[in-house]
Amino acid sequence: MSRIAYVNGRYVPHADAAVHIEDRGYQFADGVYEVVAVFEGKFVDEALHLARLWRSLSELRIAVPMTEAALSVVMRQVVRRNRVRDGIIYMQMTRGVAPRDHGFPANPQTQVVMTSRRAKPTSQATLEAGVRVITIPDIRWTRSDIKSVSLLPVVLGKQAARDAGAYEAWQVDRDGFVTEGTSTNAWIVTQAGELVTRAPYHGILNGITRLTLIEIAKRQGLTLVERPFTVAEAKAAREAFVSSATSLALPVSQIDDAVIGNGRAGSFALGLREQYLAYAAEQRKAG
Amino acid sequence: MSRIAYVNGRYVPHADAAVHIEDRGYQFADGVYEVVAVFEGKFVDEALHLARLWRSLSELRIAVPMTEAALSVVMRQVVRRNRVRDGIIYMQMTRGVAPRDHGFPANPQTQVVMTSRRAKPTSQATLEAGVRVITIPDIRWTRSDIKSVSLLPVVLGKQAARDAGAYEAWQVDRDGFVTEGTSTNAWIVTQAGELVTRAPYHGILNGITRLTLIEIAKRQGLTLVERPFTVAEAKAAREAFVSSATSLALPVSQIDDAVIGNGRAGSFALGLREQYLAYAAEQRKAG
Repeated sequence: MSRIAYVNGRYVPHADAAVHIEDRGYQFADGVYEVVAVFEGKFVDEALHLARLWRSLSELRIAVPMTEAALSVVMRQVVRRNRVRDGIIYMQMTRGVAPRDHGFPANPQTQVVMTSRRAKPTSQATLEAGVRVITIPDIRWTRSDIKSVSLLPVVLGKQAARDAGAYEAWQVDRDGFVTEGTSTNAWIVTQAGELVTRAPYHGILNGITRLTLIEIAKRQGLTLVERPFTVAEAKAAREAFVSSATSLALPVSQIDDAVIGNGRAGSFALGLREQYLAYAAEQRKAG
Repeated sequence: MSRIAYVNGRYVPHADAAVHIEDRGYQFADGVYEVVAVFEGKFVDEALHLARLWRSLSELRIAVPMTEAALSVVMRQVVRRNRVRDGIIYMQMTRGVAPRDHGFPANPQTQVVMTSRRAKPTSQATLEAGVRVITIPDIRWTRSDIKSVSLLPVVLGKQAARDAGAYEAWQVDRDGFVTEGTSTNAWIVTQAGELVTRAPYHGILNGITRLTLIEIAKRQGLTLVERPFTVAEAKAAREAFVSSATSLALPVSQIDDAVIGNGRAGSFALGLREQYLAYAAEQRKAG
């Protein structure tokens, strides 16, 4: 089956899906995006993702291209036409097509592109072993809370992780505190049993899966503390894990050369992952 | 006459010039660019621009798509087909088209897009009055020396200038020193008669016009000092100006609410501009 993409009102074969060379997304990274997980045919946390997408557009003063309801219809069409039961949907919106000039164009027409694809679940072997992360300096701009396509710094960071044979790179601010991964939020469980992740601010993305995991953790009566943590603290932690719409909660068993806990996936992270899957299943039934 | 764009080996009508939605330039800002001035049918500082383009590609580990000689042929074709005598050529190269994944794709094919358009010279009125700049915090990533398309922060900065009725925004680092404009380098002439511009480092683009102006200034026996300067120092300066391939050397007569000098274009900056034009004319004859 050939894949179908949505491009500005049209459903086109993926191979032919194109944007103009003066699309401001291409020339200026002047756009935003969202990735939403599709779980047994339903979107996970759709409303939260759309709210964040609207916020990103608003922060950049990019016009909303359609109502949330209309976007939701398109999302369902894209998933259906690509026969995706478990996977992701990718949505990108940019400030329009206009002769190249840094400032905003006079009558911008927000451009919308959407794709969907199947995704394999994380293997049992990876889940049991946990993944390795490296630490790198955070070299990004100061507004990583906006989910923009200005992603070159994290492209380089993710590749640095790959080059080191690692799954992810945790970015570290000037003061030695972990900000977040290149496409995931960062978490630790301290030896004292505190669940720690950085509080949202302009320097990190307020992950939707992060928010949901916080709610789940609270329901479990765990001691959650939103605060920065250092690389040294992470290396001495009982457990560590990353979160995102696609990795859910994924245990980290090594940070740089430091083995975390017993060097295998932490039981707390695996438990949280199970609870997250149960939450997604509940949502599917409700939706 | 309809404009023509070069897109990966083909010359196509500008209206039809498109890139795939999975071009990494569009999804990740994973690409670089150059703007070269065309002056009476010849490129200004072509070799320096190509050298910087090659450096940008190298810093990002993007493969060179063709030889400099071949690129030079394409540049001439694009200018000729668009009948541009005075204007600019825009070149963008991205890491290829691949299923969306932050790390580098396995077999990337560097994508090349080129356009050319005519440009009006700066009006005499503007040259005499000088332009206004505002100052804003520098919120960019730490590698602005790479001329990448990850330009969202400077899009916002240029728009802030527009909103304030100004020509440009000078970005200011955490320590209060001016880094550069959103698309220009920043210069001052102190009351002591020193010509000051920031030395190249990872935080600013080493402008080609900047380099040429430095050479011209040296030939004039001027005291050039490459060092950071504060906003306060700039506001107290005898003169200020900006430089770029399109603005050349353009006098600044106001910084925020501070009037510079007598509130008109500075004579030193105008003289440097004249010398730059003479240099470009020499180059044209030599070429």
